Amino acid sequence: MVAELTVLRDRIDEVDKALLTLLAQRLELVAEVGEVKSRYGLPIYAPDREAAMLASRRKEAETLGVPADLIEDILRRVMRESYSSENDKGFKKLCPELRPIVIVGGNGQMGRLFRKLFELSGYQVRILEQQDWPQAESLLSDAGMVIVSVPIHITTQIIERLPKLPEDCILVDFASVKNKPLQAMLAAHNGPVVGLHPMFGPDVNSLAKQVVVYCDGRQPEAYQWLLEQFQVWGARLHRTSAVEHDQNMSFIQALRHFTTFSYGLHLAEENVQIEQLLALSSPIYRLELAMIGRLFAQDPQLYADIIMSSENNLALIKRYYQRFGEAIALLEKDDKAAFIDSFKKVEHWFGDYAPRFMSESGSLLRQANDNRK
Amino acid sequence: MVAELTVLRDRIDEVDKALLTLLAQRLELVAEVGEVKSRYGLPIYAPDREAAMLASRRKEAETLGVPADLIEDILRRVMRESYSSENDKGFKKLCPELRPIVIVGGNGQMGRLFRKLFELSGYQVRILEQQDWPQAESLLSDAGMVIVSVPIHITTQIIERLPKLPEDCILVDFASVKNKPLQAMLAAHNGPVVGLHPMFGPDVNSLAKQVVVYCDGRQPEAYQWLLEQFQVWGARLHRTSAVEHDQNMSFIQALRHFTTFSYGLHLAEENVQIEQLLALSSPIYRLELAMIGRLFAQDPQLYADIIMSSENNLALIKRYYQRFGEAIALLEKDDKAAFIDSFKKVEHWFGDYAPRFMSESGSLLRQANDNRK
Repeated sequence: MVAELTVLRDRIDEVDKALLTLLAQRLELVAEVGEVKSRYGLPIYAPDREAAMLASRRKEAETLGVPADLIEDILRRVMRESYSSENDKGFKKLCPELRPIVIVGGNGQMGRLFRKLFELSGYQVRILEQQDWPQAESLLSDAGMVIVSVPIHITTQIIERLPKLPEDCILVDFASVKNKPLQAMLAAHNGPVVGLHPMFGPDVNSLAKQVVVYCDGRQPEAYQWLLEQFQVWGARLHRTSAVEHDQNMSFIQALRHFTTFSYGLHLAEENVQIEQLLALSSPIYRLELAMIGRLFAQDPQLYADIIMSSENNLALIKRYYQRFGEAIALLEKDDKAAFIDSFKKVEHWFGDYAPRFMSESGSLLRQANDNRK
Repeated sequence: MVAELTVLRDRIDEVDKALLTLLAQRLELVAEVGEVKSRYGLPIYAPDREAAMLASRRKEAETLGVPADLIEDILRRVMRESYSSENDKGFKKLCPELRPIVIVGGNGQMGRLFRKLFELSGYQVRILEQQDWPQAESLLSDAGMVIVSVPIHITTQIIERLPKLPEDCILVDFASVKNKPLQAMLAAHNGPVVGLHPMFGPDVNSLAKQVVVYCDGRQPEAYQWLLEQFQVWGARLHRTSAVEHDQNMSFIQALRHFTTFSYGLHLAEENVQIEQLLALSSPIYRLELAMIGRLFAQDPQLYADIIMSSENNLALIKRYYQRFGEAIALLEKDDKAAFIDSFKKVEHWFGDYAPRFMSESGSLLRQANDNRK
């Protein structure tokens, strides 16, 4: 038996080594693609090419008796690596005549990420940190673009503190609320203004497929190149109004983070044994626990700022609290029929998204199970 | 430019086709491994072999300049497929002398999954469904094992309804609460009894790496082969007491499902635009929304049953509600310092798990981003 298995396993190892060699070749070829794209200023994320390529591979896989989802999953994973390596080749500079970019808070995590991307694209980048304010006027006097990338709770006050900028300078902020900073920028500067919200953390390897939300401020023609530059880096742009943005962020950020915070608080107060929870976990619960735990590995100030950034957030959270209380009343009355009724209403609200989310999360949960050690 | 890209892309396509051929070979070899394992009754999931193999591949990858995580992720994905294909080869029958297995509720999803696994392992399986109760006595008279796989809210009443079973028959249930069913089984039958809780849904392709919790009832020596049979199928076993199991499930199932339910209810009542939320979503929020939406693609009765299965669940949910209210008080006082203080307490409670969950979920979020279309 051992001999039989050893022969087969040796052959599997040989196949895996050949696989490695192919991967090395593929990454090499993709790096060359990156070089060409960089030269011509093409976006690193090419959805049509990607979709066409995957469709062909799926078809070929089926002919060979290989599950189509297997090759698609593998190629998607390889492409992630490819996007990162395309990064290294640099990017085309879409606004060659731009004077220096100044990133206020440029040594923060987000500031550093964008400094790198702008520099890889040939722009000159200067940093304005706390200790540099005495030199702010000279640092900013010939700026072509100023990006405010500081914690939310000081964003507007930093904007108000900026000295007079050149008339044609583009003023940008990265805060995760948009209305107040945008108003502050429009008040502080008469030239082009745009509010941006990168919908990802500073730990991404590349901007491929990541969403950047933008809210037009003033003179959009002056910063079209900037939006295109984001696309060259692989990002998807989504335009919205600052008010609409903030309304949605009350759900996406404030309410979600606060419920996660409360859930963590509850676990800690109950002092349940985390090892036992994990030992008894399905992949789905382990993932949910991980999504809660990850919040607490991050900066509390950031979350306090996000949650407490507006009265609307508090009102939304309180409405949630009230509905939670109403749902408990169903349990107290042991009213299964009413519970099922409410459940179906929500199912109806989700509509086609319920089954779609079921299959989307199902595929991710299988990946989570793959990663189990 | 187009010509340059076309040449490179054609070469990439060639590499990908070679990759497909290797994958087909690998799946073929793994099927042969499955055949050997099946013959000798070896578990399909071999953690040590897996860890050693991945370590070697990571090392070789680094020599070739291929990121080690890339090859590990790919091989883990391939192994998932391998486990499913090892399934098809059948499994060794660890208890050759067992008389027929009767699955009560065997046409339910979970019942069908286990029917298939037992049959792939050479056991004779009979189904007892609602309409078969008039024949229950004859169906069960020579049963070697009876598995109760019915909705939670009727589990104990089905157990009580069973006719007298042969003295050496093993009585098993699959309910996701364990204490009451186990007590009911011990009262209904004098022979071997064990409570099982498979911690996964019926949509898994294989039991590889999936957790099965078991609670000893009576005469454990009589069902050791069953636990080993689960391991042959690839599962990990976790032993616990029924009381401890139910306490943990109040967190893992009742509280979690109920908060998800309330969150969905809130979204539906607020009638926010789901398309807009998704357009503005980071990968993490999309995943969280998907985890909520997936609940509502499932059976409301199941969730009503789980949540309302005990008074303890309600008490736990009410304590959560109270803490949620206390946390809101922090927001109302605009007390960032107190918020940060509480946050740090929870961080402390999570301990090493906070950074671990951060990296674990980070890798999964990158996979979620890979899957974006």
